[in-house]
Amino acid sequence: MTPASTDLPAPLKALVGRADDALARVLPGEDLPPTDLHRAMRYAVLGGGKRLRPLFVYAAGHALGCDGPVLDAPACAVEIIHAYSLVHDDLPAMDDDALRRGRPTCHIVFGEAMAILAGDALQALAFEILATAPGEDDARQRIAMLRALGAACGAEGMAGGQAFDLAGVGRKLSLDELERMHAYKTGALIRASVRLGALAAGCTDADMLERLDRYAHAVGLAFQVRDDILDVEGESAVIGKTAGKDAAADKPTFPSLLGLDASRDRLATLVDEALEAIAPLGGHGEWLAELARYSARRGH
Amino acid sequence: MTPASTDLPAPLKALVGRADDALARVLPGEDLPPTDLHRAMRYAVLGGGKRLRPLFVYAAGHALGCDGPVLDAPACAVEIIHAYSLVHDDLPAMDDDALRRGRPTCHIVFGEAMAILAGDALQALAFEILATAPGEDDARQRIAMLRALGAACGAEGMAGGQAFDLAGVGRKLSLDELERMHAYKTGALIRASVRLGALAAGCTDADMLERLDRYAHAVGLAFQVRDDILDVEGESAVIGKTAGKDAAADKPTFPSLLGLDASRDRLATLVDEALEAIAPLGGHGEWLAELARYSARRGH
Repeated sequence: MTPASTDLPAPLKALVGRADDALARVLPGEDLPPTDLHRAMRYAVLGGGKRLRPLFVYAAGHALGCDGPVLDAPACAVEIIHAYSLVHDDLPAMDDDALRRGRPTCHIVFGEAMAILAGDALQALAFEILATAPGEDDARQRIAMLRALGAACGAEGMAGGQAFDLAGVGRKLSLDELERMHAYKTGALIRASVRLGALAAGCTDADMLERLDRYAHAVGLAFQVRDDILDVEGESAVIGKTAGKDAAADKPTFPSLLGLDASRDRLATLVDEALEAIAPLGGHGEWLAELARYSARRGH
Repeated sequence: MTPASTDLPAPLKALVGRADDALARVLPGEDLPPTDLHRAMRYAVLGGGKRLRPLFVYAAGHALGCDGPVLDAPACAVEIIHAYSLVHDDLPAMDDDALRRGRPTCHIVFGEAMAILAGDALQALAFEILATAPGEDDARQRIAMLRALGAACGAEGMAGGQAFDLAGVGRKLSLDELERMHAYKTGALIRASVRLGALAAGCTDADMLERLDRYAHAVGLAFQVRDDILDVEGESAVIGKTAGKDAAADKPTFPSLLGLDASRDRLATLVDEALEAIAPLGGHGEWLAELARYSARRGH
């Protein structure tokens, strides 16, 4: 596999830069008090990262004919939620991870108390950004976005997935239980990202929203299957975190349940499901399709 | 001081029951998976508590002629935010407190990881509740409520106050620094509670919102001054947490900076400021006035 084949296509790479710029603007400045908290928040969000969730926002908006600045607030909101979840996941009481994106984790740099607070403040900021509309024309769409983000973050979403994850360590999970855990833990926020992009683009078509949701469900799971495969195959230097960690922690994974070959088959099926769901979008869905294919081949 | 004199007036006591009922309804059921997380969330929120923040929502709504069920969502949202903040404040990496409201703290019962997650899920739930409007007539008011709640919870609100608090331990703060810390840490959410009640009641009068904000700022600070006084005077059995803990932790307090007598004077002045701000409301502001007076005399 050549490095190029695992890269994002050029138009999506440009959107990573757009997300980075937007995030740098919405995060509070390091020179303003409370400076320690603001520094920890910026460190947690601006330290690289693939910006996949913003890409889903931009790609979904693009699919529905919108590429405008109205997408930046939801793009920032979902990435900030993702960043906060990583800060809390890495805490000693959770996964106890010292390395993230090739850098020391937030609590290693700023201490546990500040890392907890930075995560808390980031979650609040995500909702605040989303509620701070540039205009007031789309109030109902914006409330729908806030509701979707809230549901994706809570006990029936990301936080619930973490709870399933905690309950699953050292225990033999069924494939259904493993998929449920991932559907909550990472799937919910990816689905919210796609939905927020569509809603920000003005989409009110229930059938289209449902198709996009099927797409996002499949791609979200595909990313996780690929993540598990990479954890078996990868090296720490490439994936930017400690390789083999899941296996060492006796965490359930797709390869440990299905084997590597069947995991790769599952991945291919999920990508097909995702592409089928957005087929009616035709060329407009190109970025979404690229993201689905990328989910299966990415090297980190 | 007789026990009766430190009690809430009867109409406000009834609202505590209303808040308790509303909270029990909006929290996820313990029988639904992830059950551990849902149990921790309910434990954190439903374990008693004065429900002061919901009272501010109801009292502000009442002052503007609204007592309807539209106040229940904001009342639940602010109390759930408060409850999550206590769960995280009590963590070993933060205040390391084992007792809260006379019961073991959330992490003592459910473990640190689940307490972190329960707090995270509660914060998301608060925003989700507020975004889940019963009707859609008031979309712009609801967005204003979500924006106010987001601002009150983040780095320029509650989480920022915690960061100031961390930075202040073991250091001599000025009175201005102490008041700023409290204005962020507890004041922001109390101000949001009053504002949310007013917005839910349909208030769009900028002058009235500003008066209510002055009221809330003064009462929020009054509660904190009284808290500090109680920490010096109180006994663990009465206040439901470890008395003298602030002094033992060398945390800055009003009595340690001003002395007890001057702290009591400051408290009286703050109550006067609060009452002055809402004077134009006349009899409609009766519950807000009761809460201001209660802030100065409460025994726990």
